[in-house]
Amino acid sequence: MLILGLDPSLSCTGWGIVRAEGSRISHVANGQVKTDAKAPVAERLHHLHDAIFAVIGQYAPDRAAAEEIFVNKNPQSTLKLAQARGAILAACGRASLSVSEHAARAVKKSVVGTGGAEKAQVQAMLKVLLPGVKVEGADAADALAVAIADAHLGRG
Amino acid sequence: MLILGLDPSLSCTGWGIVRAEGSRISHVANGQVKTDAKAPVAERLHHLHDAIFAVIGQYAPDRAAAEEIFVNKNPQSTLKLAQARGAILAACGRASLSVSEHAARAVKKSVVGTGGAEKAQVQAMLKVLLPGVKVEGADAADALAVAIADAHLGRG
Repeated sequence: MLILGLDPSLSCTGWGIVRAEGSRISHVANGQVKTDAKAPVAERLHHLHDAIFAVIGQYAPDRAAAEEIFVNKNPQSTLKLAQARGAILAACGRASLSVSEHAARAVKKSVVGTGGAEKAQVQAMLKVLLPGVKVEGADAADALAVAIADAHLGRG
Repeated sequence: MLILGLDPSLSCTGWGIVRAEGSRISHVANGQVKTDAKAPVAERLHHLHDAIFAVIGQYAPDRAAAEEIFVNKNPQSTLKLAQARGAILAACGRASLSVSEHAARAVKKSVVGTGGAEKAQVQAMLKVLLPGVKVEGADAADALAVAIADAHLGRG
């Protein structure tokens, strides 16, 4: 069972794929998709959509997962994030991939053991859980964490 | 010059195309794309993306326009809307179509003459501005209004 974790954002979307065999989880691949801040938004969204669709085509994951989003203190950032997420989820839909959502706290709790864990703790735990992993960056790390949490939590 | 107006929403996205020749505006086509509320969100977003991409392929508009969005009183609705908008803008990007954004008040002012116009007033003015038009529904009407406003306002 291959699980694709996604950490959408307009400027840099992280993705990470893990293999789950029973309770055993191993690393398959991870990466980040960056978009040109000077390009029109529609073009950037298309780039995200296409790049994630290509990742799905390359690795053929069985399911996908992303963190839940909510409206935070910066509504404009939230709208940008939600638009990026929409373009990316559409790519999952195009590949008939089912996407589950997990609360950020549930992801941290699943990976680190506590819902209030810092990003650095999550990244440190990734190295323990996925020995030898080379993480492309902070967004790819978040995506791997979501994939691991999805493996632990299953479809909920 | 063909202009595609878009009124994105997850449940029912409106679209409308007008031809602008100098100050003359005429109706080309309009429609609505509905999605199955019981289907997974990723599948619904993919359906919107694909349907709008097909409309662009059929009519080959020169540019597109949508209303600006903002976070309103219902944050969950706003997030759904922004995701739908992201999937649809990605389709525009896929077709290399530039998308401009206009404030809702600017659209109403452009079509009816006052930024505080009611929906019914906008729909009544559409019949005046686009004689003989058959509008597929309220969302298609909003989309045609955005297209007309974009013709009036130009790229701003």
